[in-house]
Amino acid sequence: MNYRFADKMNSFKSSAVREILKLTQGDAIISLAGGLPAEEHFPLEAVRDAFNRVLDQGKHVLQYGLTEGYTPLRESLCNHLARKHMHVTPDNMLLTTGSQQAIDLLTRVYINPGDVILVERPTYLAAIQVFQSNGARVISVEGDDEGMNLDDLSHKIKQYQAKMAYVIPTFSNPGGKAWSLERRKGFLEICKNNQVLIIEDDPYGELKFGEDTHYPTLFSLDDHPQGSSVVYTSTFSKIVAPALRTGWAIGDREVISSMTRAKQAADLHSSTMDQQALHQLFEHFDLYGHIATVRHEYEKRKNHMLSLMKQQQWENVSWLEPKGGMFVWVKLPEGTKAEDLLQYAVKEGVAFVPGSSFFASDPMYNTMRMNFSYSAHDQMVLAIERLNAAMEKYKADFSTAAR
Amino acid sequence: MNYRFADKMNSFKSSAVREILKLTQGDAIISLAGGLPAEEHFPLEAVRDAFNRVLDQGKHVLQYGLTEGYTPLRESLCNHLARKHMHVTPDNMLLTTGSQQAIDLLTRVYINPGDVILVERPTYLAAIQVFQSNGARVISVEGDDEGMNLDDLSHKIKQYQAKMAYVIPTFSNPGGKAWSLERRKGFLEICKNNQVLIIEDDPYGELKFGEDTHYPTLFSLDDHPQGSSVVYTSTFSKIVAPALRTGWAIGDREVISSMTRAKQAADLHSSTMDQQALHQLFEHFDLYGHIATVRHEYEKRKNHMLSLMKQQQWENVSWLEPKGGMFVWVKLPEGTKAEDLLQYAVKEGVAFVPGSSFFASDPMYNTMRMNFSYSAHDQMVLAIERLNAAMEKYKADFSTAAR
Repeated sequence: MNYRFADKMNSFKSSAVREILKLTQGDAIISLAGGLPAEEHFPLEAVRDAFNRVLDQGKHVLQYGLTEGYTPLRESLCNHLARKHMHVTPDNMLLTTGSQQAIDLLTRVYINPGDVILVERPTYLAAIQVFQSNGARVISVEGDDEGMNLDDLSHKIKQYQAKMAYVIPTFSNPGGKAWSLERRKGFLEICKNNQVLIIEDDPYGELKFGEDTHYPTLFSLDDHPQGSSVVYTSTFSKIVAPALRTGWAIGDREVISSMTRAKQAADLHSSTMDQQALHQLFEHFDLYGHIATVRHEYEKRKNHMLSLMKQQQWENVSWLEPKGGMFVWVKLPEGTKAEDLLQYAVKEGVAFVPGSSFFASDPMYNTMRMNFSYSAHDQMVLAIERLNAAMEKYKADFSTAAR
Repeated sequence: MNYRFADKMNSFKSSAVREILKLTQGDAIISLAGGLPAEEHFPLEAVRDAFNRVLDQGKHVLQYGLTEGYTPLRESLCNHLARKHMHVTPDNMLLTTGSQQAIDLLTRVYINPGDVILVERPTYLAAIQVFQSNGARVISVEGDDEGMNLDDLSHKIKQYQAKMAYVIPTFSNPGGKAWSLERRKGFLEICKNNQVLIIEDDPYGELKFGEDTHYPTLFSLDDHPQGSSVVYTSTFSKIVAPALRTGWAIGDREVISSMTRAKQAADLHSSTMDQQALHQLFEHFDLYGHIATVRHEYEKRKNHMLSLMKQQQWENVSWLEPKGGMFVWVKLPEGTKAEDLLQYAVKEGVAFVPGSSFFASDPMYNTMRMNFSYSAHDQMVLAIERLNAAMEKYKADFSTAAR
């Protein structure tokens, strides 16, 4: 038959980059493209113990659950969040299939087609995709190493009557950037004064490098969950494991209950097996010790990658030292097109994500995102060697072409 | 702050019925309201074995997965579906968080606001909710014990330029009805001729009472998945357990790949732990023996409930004998309002779902849906006694009021 898809599917084309990255799934290619945690550090035996403890409770554990999510896990998470100065009750919380679903649900209940959502420049590519798939207009706000540019923010809120803003203030994706306290406070105040709802996406907050600095969340800087301008989202994917596919949102009860109604229609509830197992991990596993181990390991991997990159002495290539998270954001020489470089890189056996995908508009083509959390020591040595070979071949072809 | 929710949230009000049913969650009330499987028959030890087998494979099982779903499970499911004369490859399949998500995703990619979806009268209440939450206009088509009325179908397809039709031909929810073969073929032909995409929702197909009759799915009656007018959805919730929250959709590759892109934005992928465990159940558990046991038990529970109801000798109360599934659809005397009766019932300690929730428009208020799969023998005796008491008190008050 002749399928008649919804109009919005036109903005949903599969990208060339996604097609190239599909080629990287075999063992032959070292991928610095994904945002994958280090498998060596997954707490396999603790997860096994957790599932067994769940199943020890009897057959009722296999029944349908609440749309809001498994209540004891929401309670454990409230205690966890209180350690980070975010004081909520289970009524302020919705458990989701990864934090991505939380972002989607909030967009579904809050955005009419054509409404404007402000984002960082660059920002998380899948968030752009979620917003556009819900008919939003996505506008980038300029920024620097300290966070969003507040003048540009004020200007664009007024220019576009912006309804929502999406930010990753702590160890941003793609940049690994951490906003200064001043910028956090200024951003919050401007959004509050202009009735702009904030999505504070914080998947990486626990993956901090160095012990000294404290980065308060926007949610903790706001007064109280009731009436808050902030909906805070996070996930267990980076601190336990992605296969357990559990994220959450916290915020005002009215907002959370709207999201819950939308979730009831969307999928009734997420996996209760996973939610129950995660609750057991809070009860019977040293989660904070585990997070400290992972954080330490990722910092080592980051240092290793950056020192390998320095050794290459690439001309006119620069990056921001990540303060946490899983990624480094690299600027290539002016005129370089990272999408073309990727084709050379894949031939050499290494992959990354071209930076253009992280821009809502006017992409900077000479940028790329590289992941340092997934590849262990020797793999990373090989990856950077291969990337170096790709850059040389690209440069050679490019200068030939320019001659 | 002053939240400004999306316009569609106006059609998303929490219903009075849902509020009453929330009261039924304690142990004091026997609920015939939910669509809950019998907990006694959950294969707890097989599930434990399955999770352990998954975790035996090593830490990589805890990593991110494909949006399409775990490939070996899609392969097992293809073999399973071939037994039911549905011949597809994993490329024709998307794994979802329950079949409800499959319905939501298809609606998201296929329906523009205002597009018309035709449904049975009555039909699954959560499907109505999904469609309306996506801005669709939902129109009911008349039917009888054999299935949809084909004249009314043709008429309404033309009148409303209908784009999609949603049906549960095998053991419908709420009625437990099974469409005749003739009606299936006629429905398929009319939809094909008019370019109406069909969602065939089949959560209950395996729960057939009596061995003789074979009910071919609409999908199997269509020629080939490529270009098919049918997207078929089902779930493991009724044949294994709801906590593993895994459903699926099969259909044309173009349709499935559009749904996959929408899922990538919505939640990236569903729980991989659950999907891997379900694959282990296909490999190491007598799933078909298990389904036979459950089916046999549900038939016994259905017979038990109906015989208890007959014993009450309720005047002007009738029901259709379910041919499978989990529910019986009851017509109360003309003028009875099941929503009011529910208040009496809850006081007596029993709950059901008033039938009005299952109508897209012009509800029949004197109807109710009762579940027979969840409550074991003695509980059911008590439930029907309590319902009888509620009906007597309702009748007494009603005749007083009418005097």
